Amino acid sequence: MSGSGMPQRVNICECWARDGLQGEDQFIPTEKKITIINRMVDIGFKRIEATSFAHPKLIPQFSDSLEVLKAIKRPPDVTFIAIIPNDKGLDRLLEACHQGYGVQEITAILSASEDHLLANLERTFEEAMPPLADLVKRARQAGIKVIGCIGTAFGCPLVGEVPLGKIIELTDWYLDKGATSIMLGDTTGEANPRQVREVFSRMKDRFPGVDFIAHFHDTRGMGLANTLAALQEGIVLHDSSFGGMGGQPATRRPKYHKGFAGNTCTEDMVLMMEEMGIDTGLDIEEVIDTGLLAEEFCGRNLLGHVTRSGAVRHRSSRPLSLQELRLNGEIAPALLFAGKVKEKLSGQALVGYVIREALAKNWPVPENLRISVDGVSVKEEFGGRDILVTRFKVLEIQKEKNEGILEVLCQKANGDVFMEGQTRLTFSG
Amino acid sequence: MSGSGMPQRVNICECWARDGLQGEDQFIPTEKKITIINRMVDIGFKRIEATSFAHPKLIPQFSDSLEVLKAIKRPPDVTFIAIIPNDKGLDRLLEACHQGYGVQEITAILSASEDHLLANLERTFEEAMPPLADLVKRARQAGIKVIGCIGTAFGCPLVGEVPLGKIIELTDWYLDKGATSIMLGDTTGEANPRQVREVFSRMKDRFPGVDFIAHFHDTRGMGLANTLAALQEGIVLHDSSFGGMGGQPATRRPKYHKGFAGNTCTEDMVLMMEEMGIDTGLDIEEVIDTGLLAEEFCGRNLLGHVTRSGAVRHRSSRPLSLQELRLNGEIAPALLFAGKVKEKLSGQALVGYVIREALAKNWPVPENLRISVDGVSVKEEFGGRDILVTRFKVLEIQKEKNEGILEVLCQKANGDVFMEGQTRLTFSG
Repeated sequence: MSGSGMPQRVNICECWARDGLQGEDQFIPTEKKITIINRMVDIGFKRIEATSFAHPKLIPQFSDSLEVLKAIKRPPDVTFIAIIPNDKGLDRLLEACHQGYGVQEITAILSASEDHLLANLERTFEEAMPPLADLVKRARQAGIKVIGCIGTAFGCPLVGEVPLGKIIELTDWYLDKGATSIMLGDTTGEANPRQVREVFSRMKDRFPGVDFIAHFHDTRGMGLANTLAALQEGIVLHDSSFGGMGGQPATRRPKYHKGFAGNTCTEDMVLMMEEMGIDTGLDIEEVIDTGLLAEEFCGRNLLGHVTRSGAVRHRSSRPLSLQELRLNGEIAPALLFAGKVKEKLSGQALVGYVIREALAKNWPVPENLRISVDGVSVKEEFGGRDILVTRFKVLEIQKEKNEGILEVLCQKANGDVFMEGQTRLTFSG
Repeated sequence: MSGSGMPQRVNICECWARDGLQGEDQFIPTEKKITIINRMVDIGFKRIEATSFAHPKLIPQFSDSLEVLKAIKRPPDVTFIAIIPNDKGLDRLLEACHQGYGVQEITAILSASEDHLLANLERTFEEAMPPLADLVKRARQAGIKVIGCIGTAFGCPLVGEVPLGKIIELTDWYLDKGATSIMLGDTTGEANPRQVREVFSRMKDRFPGVDFIAHFHDTRGMGLANTLAALQEGIVLHDSSFGGMGGQPATRRPKYHKGFAGNTCTEDMVLMMEEMGIDTGLDIEEVIDTGLLAEEFCGRNLLGHVTRSGAVRHRSSRPLSLQELRLNGEIAPALLFAGKVKEKLSGQALVGYVIREALAKNWPVPENLRISVDGVSVKEEFGGRDILVTRFKVLEIQKEKNEGILEVLCQKANGDVFMEGQTRLTFSG
């Protein structure tokens, strides 16, 4: 049966502040990073990749890692994560932990492909693994959890296929050194859904009880399809980044795929999961708002789809109330077939009727709702058979008066504007 | 088991020339439409949605529908499809068929949501169905197959949920009137993968033996995830459009989702399927080339991912030969750890060695390959431990000489250019 193996609840790690930004050429000001991370906390993310301790000369974006960690909100149920590439990075982190602004979890990095390891870290397995083992052990001794990241786990842009045996070997090694979870990273977007199912299926069989993290990049548009495949194998821990940002660090190294290798997009991932009835603990509208803020801070449209289209519309089971209105938000567009309007309705009464019927397409409209339409002008006569598409934008919410002021645009099916203006909804009683 | 229900082979209908273009404001010149359709034929598409017989005043993009149908290649194994909205359209098509340039299959259109039907076609079910029944019958009497399209099958942007009962009712109706296949259209991208599996699972149980077509839009980024879900339910017939173009017709009607509602992208869909071992009958490189041509004709980058990133790299099991070189194509970038180079190699011999090793990362390099490197300059000394990323672009293929001329760019891991220039590969014997 479809979806029978999917988890009912997932835990998404938001990676914008690290993986998302590591490929960004412009420096995002520290206070903006802090604003976004605090918004993540506010809207319910429980795992947040906050920064990297890569050398600031290599990736200047993270020269403010300590400032970021010092300033962010820290509710006890949120896990903050940082990438620690080497001993010096760990020294800095442990000092921060000592001062009270560390992280609870770090990510240690290897590639399944030695060619990629060489290109990325300029080290062979033989050179990379002993110091990494020390790093894992030191972190664990300090009470910090360690994600053992296996990059290029689904394929390498340099040499192609990666044998499953290598992933098993590195997982064994990581667990032996003390890693508390294993991340399979599709670093440059080589994975396909069939492979994702097979790899996770075999890894879960081989390592029962181990927490695996699915970390996909949307390089070839398969980020969500691969996420679906991972869900079908019961994976609970997923990585994503606002706006589908991310990819190779903004260094002088040669780029794969012309640098087009962002993470799976948070907004789109949350929508897909929530639409499938999988609980992310997040509200899609708040996620979209945060994605739009990230876009504003980056100064351009990012790669999210839902950010442009809006969430999927469903008819609400709750009656319309002031709580349903979101400032600057749209209420679902609604269509009216108005052929049955009584002829005696005209002017303000007619406009009120149209607005009430439009709202009712998406919400049970409460009896106590009063609609004032003084500001609405009707451009045309209302015929016996007009098809109207009506849109609302929330301009103002006056909680003390229990009122909302909406902008109304009502078009005929051919595009002609039928009526437009402002209306006031008053929820009395 | 993962993917056990997936088909081994699919049949993709390329919809660029109709659904892809119907939302395009600029008129794409007739000869360019013909060029793209002929390329689709050449590279192996067996189902091609060629045009629409919508009234030219409503959608000017299709004012050249008869010219397009007259001029395109018509191998007998390719099915051409057109949208026929009404009787007048069918009259024009039947005349074209009579003259020898018709189509073998038409699409008849309904929405599962009456609100959407009203907004889109300005008709109620009661008004739309009788003339559509006549249209289906007339087409069938003329020997033309009919796709019964059910739009908004997974949700309506106006009223939200669509009951499965309505889809079953409309499918029964279409089959009764003579439709030869049923398209479930996610017209504005409301579907999610769990729903797709459930709907197709139940429809296949209810209508065994009926050919269902999956038609998704990528409005919310779920096009490929929904395609995967349809594959998992055994669906063989899939719709897509180059560059993820498509959406609401470019009319004056009010737009849903700000018009952001393109079809699932052909290039990305083909890659996903081929990577999963599902035979599309297409070569991904030729598909990408055609997608790039569509971009050129539209004058902008479209929404395909693979078009930017390139296909997934795999090490080939076939030895490198002239047939593997594609003009202007890149051969996979390859990484070298060159620590083991014998010291006595230097100058031309060293450059030849580097190029041969780089090629060998992706191809078995044949013994008879001669590498001439007269045009290559080495910028730096070659150290004991240099990590090189080498790229090749094919500049020229001389079949008579069995030679290819490649541009070579070789960078150190830190980005410094190590060597660059041109090299000549001669496949002798």
